[in-house]
Amino acid sequence: MASTATQSYKDISVIARKRRDTNIAAYFQPPKVDEASLPNNLTEHALNSGYYTSEERTILESEAEEILQNVASKKWTALEVAKAFCKASAYAQELTNCVTEVLYPEAYQRAQYLDDYLAKNGKTVGPLHGLPISLKDCFVTPPHPSSIGMSPYANEPTDSETVLVTMLRDLGAVFYVKTNVPTAMMMAESINHVWGETRNALHKGLTPGGSSGGEGALIALKASPLGVGTDIGGSIRIPAAFGFQYGLKPSYGRYPSWGGKTGITGQEFILAVNGPMSRSLKSLEIYSEALLSEQSAPWNRDHKCLPIPWRKNVIQPPGRKLRLGLVGNNDGLVHCHPPVERALNVTKEKLEAAGHTVIPWAPKNHDVIAKNLVAAFFDLGGSAIVDMVKPHDEPIFPSMKGYEMAAQAKEIGVTQMRQMVVKRNELQKQYLDYWMTGAPDGQPLDGIIMAVAPHAAPRLGGTQPDLYVGYTGVWNLLDFCACTFPVLFADRSLDKARDSKTFKQLSDIDGRIQADYDAEFYHGAPVSLQCVGKRLEEEKVLEMTAAIAQALKA
Amino acid sequence: MASTATQSYKDISVIARKRRDTNIAAYFQPPKVDEASLPNNLTEHALNSGYYTSEERTILESEAEEILQNVASKKWTALEVAKAFCKASAYAQELTNCVTEVLYPEAYQRAQYLDDYLAKNGKTVGPLHGLPISLKDCFVTPPHPSSIGMSPYANEPTDSETVLVTMLRDLGAVFYVKTNVPTAMMMAESINHVWGETRNALHKGLTPGGSSGGEGALIALKASPLGVGTDIGGSIRIPAAFGFQYGLKPSYGRYPSWGGKTGITGQEFILAVNGPMSRSLKSLEIYSEALLSEQSAPWNRDHKCLPIPWRKNVIQPPGRKLRLGLVGNNDGLVHCHPPVERALNVTKEKLEAAGHTVIPWAPKNHDVIAKNLVAAFFDLGGSAIVDMVKPHDEPIFPSMKGYEMAAQAKEIGVTQMRQMVVKRNELQKQYLDYWMTGAPDGQPLDGIIMAVAPHAAPRLGGTQPDLYVGYTGVWNLLDFCACTFPVLFADRSLDKARDSKTFKQLSDIDGRIQADYDAEFYHGAPVSLQCVGKRLEEEKVLEMTAAIAQALKA
Repeated sequence: MASTATQSYKDISVIARKRRDTNIAAYFQPPKVDEASLPNNLTEHALNSGYYTSEERTILESEAEEILQNVASKKWTALEVAKAFCKASAYAQELTNCVTEVLYPEAYQRAQYLDDYLAKNGKTVGPLHGLPISLKDCFVTPPHPSSIGMSPYANEPTDSETVLVTMLRDLGAVFYVKTNVPTAMMMAESINHVWGETRNALHKGLTPGGSSGGEGALIALKASPLGVGTDIGGSIRIPAAFGFQYGLKPSYGRYPSWGGKTGITGQEFILAVNGPMSRSLKSLEIYSEALLSEQSAPWNRDHKCLPIPWRKNVIQPPGRKLRLGLVGNNDGLVHCHPPVERALNVTKEKLEAAGHTVIPWAPKNHDVIAKNLVAAFFDLGGSAIVDMVKPHDEPIFPSMKGYEMAAQAKEIGVTQMRQMVVKRNELQKQYLDYWMTGAPDGQPLDGIIMAVAPHAAPRLGGTQPDLYVGYTGVWNLLDFCACTFPVLFADRSLDKARDSKTFKQLSDIDGRIQADYDAEFYHGAPVSLQCVGKRLEEEKVLEMTAAIAQALKA
Repeated sequence: MASTATQSYKDISVIARKRRDTNIAAYFQPPKVDEASLPNNLTEHALNSGYYTSEERTILESEAEEILQNVASKKWTALEVAKAFCKASAYAQELTNCVTEVLYPEAYQRAQYLDDYLAKNGKTVGPLHGLPISLKDCFVTPPHPSSIGMSPYANEPTDSETVLVTMLRDLGAVFYVKTNVPTAMMMAESINHVWGETRNALHKGLTPGGSSGGEGALIALKASPLGVGTDIGGSIRIPAAFGFQYGLKPSYGRYPSWGGKTGITGQEFILAVNGPMSRSLKSLEIYSEALLSEQSAPWNRDHKCLPIPWRKNVIQPPGRKLRLGLVGNNDGLVHCHPPVERALNVTKEKLEAAGHTVIPWAPKNHDVIAKNLVAAFFDLGGSAIVDMVKPHDEPIFPSMKGYEMAAQAKEIGVTQMRQMVVKRNELQKQYLDYWMTGAPDGQPLDGIIMAVAPHAAPRLGGTQPDLYVGYTGVWNLLDFCACTFPVLFADRSLDKARDSKTFKQLSDIDGRIQADYDAEFYHGAPVSLQCVGKRLEEEKVLEMTAAIAQALKA
């Protein structure tokens, strides 16, 4: 049932939630949540709840590469794998409110088809044969709606499948669930007036971040081995980081993007991209290699996709030591919280111990870039978002007030747009030059390491008064690629609050964000960092991230 | 001397022309032109005029690959080569008015340096060692002005060199002259109120086309072995075709573009690109391979440049037969002139005789694409161009009246811009699908062959009442790549005018363009076609063009 033009967002929401709940209940009845006795860590709680059989638990705790091997070798059937993840997603919904659309019937059917195919042909359909993949709500899987957290779309059937979805299915993937996002995917928490708020699986008082926050929660809960998110200002990296995962934000054009729902349709000043998220770095490589192969050739299905097949071993000679810039405890505008600073320090020490060169890297122009990014979102997205939700009386969240103000102001015109483009291009060119020659020895960097957000995942609602995505968004404006990696958990005894008497704030928002830090409350919050590469260096970024992960393990 | 804000375009033009003429006269005194006795073909006239020594003539008549070999092997010095082309450019200016800025002192100095380097080191500085390359006026070569045919820039010194210029010089190129364009590079004839009008070297009554028309004329006159043009609606292909040359319009991002002067700064709805033009197809390959090598790595100097090194032998197995779509004698809006239709027929016959498959290809949506392209130029470029030239009282050419109207109208805003982007992207996706599956057998094409313009080069001023760039512009909006190839010359006895009684016009402009055809006047006009590849298939396009050229020769 499509929502009508005059329907209130409240009525729309009731219909959407009921559809989801009914579709889940037809298959599973996970334990009800008792908030009072629920521990902070929902993942451990779920795994130890007795809800799963030991076989199911083994499947859920396996990484994507193991699942692929075990299905291909017929140790597991695709159907039993699909059922385990469907079952887990039902509980994940109960615990974190991360699910939007339920695709269980298709999942079962597809998994059965794959098992039959393998039995009959003695080979898999493709390199992702039998792998359950969860999808951010913006990927269109007809006839299911793709609400992207907006009431006008919440109950609207769809008819044209996202090219990426078609391609992944052809490669063997099994889709079983779509996941929650913030309104129009333009906040760093996953809350909206259709589905409500998603919380963090590793610490229930925290947000999983956004906009791919449903993915982050689902994956952290081990209810997905691999998910696909999108990123226009940090929307893959923030939830991947807050879920203690690897999340790859590619440069634009590397992965097919045609036919996905977008928050600000036709806006290409800052380019939205999609990419994989997982607890396993290896699985991001498997995904990318499968999708971007010569055989798969996504550039023949999506005009915006670049004909650059996935390459292996781009760092030569293999195992050579890296030159990594390290941005310190602030980006020129905002300091990070103490646990994040500790993660930076630990990473630096471990990298140097492993023989890599770590170069202190001044965040040159990061403040200017962040300001241009946010201004562009508001100026270009104001009416695109606000005019859509207004007829349904959807309130505007505090961190999205800039869109409302822009929608009320005079629309900017072509001349100003052209000036914005000129400025953006200059910032891009300057940063490339800085990367190539800005180190003390004048030699290029391999990569940059920096924080993903000021917080180890902030408290629920914590970004509403002060949304700051400069740490991630800088790389969106530059169209560089980046991958998150997990480092450590906040520790009340190690990560003491900064001394407010000596702390010198860089901006008002810096002061407020730092004042929010509470060593006790944030204890156990996951801390991840990001490794950045130049434009279209996705392979290199994953290889560098592997080297960093290895150093951190040592 | 920079032009002042209030200076009339007439005064500015006098200063600019005097600078050019003085700079040439300091080196050369080519024969004065006697219009009355001048034949149509200026190239033959120049070569037979006695102005050149036989050694000079040998150099001028050599293609780029021979020049490179002969300089590298010390048969010729870079200096004598540079001198020959400087001398020829002086005469080309006299005959066609194709030159804007004169770079002879730098050319001599650089050539001498290259000779010294080779003598001392026993090797060349790079793969373009000693090759004179002419540049369209938009490439910035400090301190020379880069007027792009607009009075506000005509006498303004420059200080920041175009990245492409720096890179080509590092590879061994010798720059000696910049060449004429239309106002803001937005017409298909090379005429403006600073430098005046350039004419066609192969038929003095015809335009060399535009916007890279100075290049087209210079190369046709054998006063340049290779030039670099730019193309946003046909500006490489039209003058290359009208000059009986190969001209490669790449997809955006393949060649470095940073720091070139643009007609509509900050406009990225239709992307301007640069590419090589030459009488020798081989030289386009040499140029591309040198510039886009792993060593050269333009993506490390220009953020917009894609990290796709030049590949060889992309058609596999080598020599396999091609599947080529052929667009017939119209694109749905405008018919071509009879000589162009004959070129299409000849090409079809020769290709089939060579074993290639030629598939009649309906120009699906070409009319819609062409209209979207032209509307975008006006809407996005109106004030950008008109507001610049107005203070200097520059009149607006008839074929640019759309810019003046747009500049007077209400500027379009962000919402409309976003709708334009959505429409453009749909057209791109639809055409890709059409390419991949639109043939009768549902199999993908290798390439498309079609006309470059309705005319074999039109008469001077001929496009002012009816500028139509749909044949080329369609590939700009789609960002596909294309290369022109010469086919034949208009022949009064073979290319009779269509019968006006039976001719059914597709549009008013179609009727007027067809009415302009005159078999007698156009006799001897060069006719070239274009071979189109998908986005970023530049190597394949050159390899296909080579196969086509071979078939035409047979």
